[in-house]
Amino acid sequence: MADEKVGFIGIGRMGEAIARNLREAGHELVVYNRTASKADALVREGAARAQRPADACSPGGVVITMLSDDRALEEVVGSDGFLARLAPGGVHVSMSTVSPETTERLAIRHANEGSALVAAPVFGRPAAAAARKLWICVSGAPQARDRAVALLRPVGQGIFEMGDDPSAASVTKLCGNFVIAAAMESMAEAFALGEKNGVAPSALADLFGKTMFSCPAYQSYGATIAERRFTPPGFTLALGLKDLNLAVEAGSHSNVPMPFAQIVRDRLRSGVEKGRGDLDWAALTLGAREDAGL
Amino acid sequence: MADEKVGFIGIGRMGEAIARNLREAGHELVVYNRTASKADALVREGAARAQRPADACSPGGVVITMLSDDRALEEVVGSDGFLARLAPGGVHVSMSTVSPETTERLAIRHANEGSALVAAPVFGRPAAAAARKLWICVSGAPQARDRAVALLRPVGQGIFEMGDDPSAASVTKLCGNFVIAAAMESMAEAFALGEKNGVAPSALADLFGKTMFSCPAYQSYGATIAERRFTPPGFTLALGLKDLNLAVEAGSHSNVPMPFAQIVRDRLRSGVEKGRGDLDWAALTLGAREDAGL
Repeated sequence: MADEKVGFIGIGRMGEAIARNLREAGHELVVYNRTASKADALVREGAARAQRPADACSPGGVVITMLSDDRALEEVVGSDGFLARLAPGGVHVSMSTVSPETTERLAIRHANEGSALVAAPVFGRPAAAAARKLWICVSGAPQARDRAVALLRPVGQGIFEMGDDPSAASVTKLCGNFVIAAAMESMAEAFALGEKNGVAPSALADLFGKTMFSCPAYQSYGATIAERRFTPPGFTLALGLKDLNLAVEAGSHSNVPMPFAQIVRDRLRSGVEKGRGDLDWAALTLGAREDAGL
Repeated sequence: MADEKVGFIGIGRMGEAIARNLREAGHELVVYNRTASKADALVREGAARAQRPADACSPGGVVITMLSDDRALEEVVGSDGFLARLAPGGVHVSMSTVSPETTERLAIRHANEGSALVAAPVFGRPAAAAARKLWICVSGAPQARDRAVALLRPVGQGIFEMGDDPSAASVTKLCGNFVIAAAMESMAEAFALGEKNGVAPSALADLFGKTMFSCPAYQSYGATIAERRFTPPGFTLALGLKDLNLAVEAGSHSNVPMPFAQIVRDRLRSGVEKGRGDLDWAALTLGAREDAGL
């Protein structure tokens, strides 16, 4: 695997960190980004530059995408020559957070054209990506999945295989982001209740983070929320809204009433409308605080 | 401290375990329980039996209560001779989960009669109490609080001092139980979404418990919820409803809108109405599951 040529499409903050780690793991890289300048650093470091998405694909090879949303992913897959260049036997490792419906539809298109789509969304912020500390959920047809897992192992701290259905990893990722957002809303309500009753949010955050909730989500977001430290963003509120919209829509498509998901989605929606889209998504917790007149 | 005579009122599953550990730490115990037989084991082990709550009190001494609700606590404090026997200088360590209003009101009565109330509610199930693994939140006037902390240190794995206001620890406890219940509801919604999309709840529970949520609340409740293993109860759904009612009421009194708290309160309320009051309170998650037709 170490000398496999890998295409990488989508050089944002996450993509750049992952691509760099793949190169450091010994892979020859061909990178593409719509705004070409974002790939300049990687090209300076030795990656080849593709002029269009299809040029990052090779017959039977692996191409990775890390894009901002369903539409960007659909555009890349639908772009001239992308699917044609990947066949026969190529693997598209789709790391974007997108709807399970999009993943499923695109997986069928790949299969029809002789390649495979493996979904591989990640949990972790750009700093975690740089430090090879991502958690990666992988699902798709077994052989293609094995190639994706072998390729991605060096860039994460753990890989969770979610089965043969590509959309499974996409659903898993939406579930995870929803549960994180719900944890933040619950802390926000608890902190507001504490603050109005003489208990500092930081004291509650400290207690939670050392006891029942001694885990990254509560420890890091607990401090962020207690201190209302929403810049620089690790993950923007606007992107959080995108993901919670996907979770709520997935709930609608599957007929799963999700009252918590709707509340946090509306917190995020309201956050965007209040001009907080570029803050860290933990700023969704300002909603509960403001509702309490704090 | 080790030879202090300590009164202990309320010998339920939690109270019995804590009282036994206090005796093993070297304290002479005087125990009282309304249903006297529940104290038989402790009496056989060497504790003295009080015939009424006041007999568990001594002038300037320490009496601990661990009771089921606000009303039981008010009855004990209001019972003949209780406050009179504790003064001057006695300390009532109130470990029950009760409303901050009740704690505050009773603290004033103690102060007026020459003693002090220290709130010391705990996080942990009976097994944790037996294993001296409780997390204990303590608040109240400094000198009295110091006595409570010294006394309780051997029965817990950690003590969090929440300041001079006795009601602070009561609010903290309500916040903690609410955040646990919210974590369970969020997992339930995520698991239902996963299940309808081909991802097993146990796979999501495993992922969460090993990554962003690698902490006791998600690990133990995640498995419980995924396996729908609600007996024997560690903490009953009926008691959970009591606590979430207190949290929602505290929100009302403090004018803190708490949409998540209302949803989980209603899940618990509905659970009781469906005959699940004696199950573990994680059975509140059946609500989201049933709403999804699962």
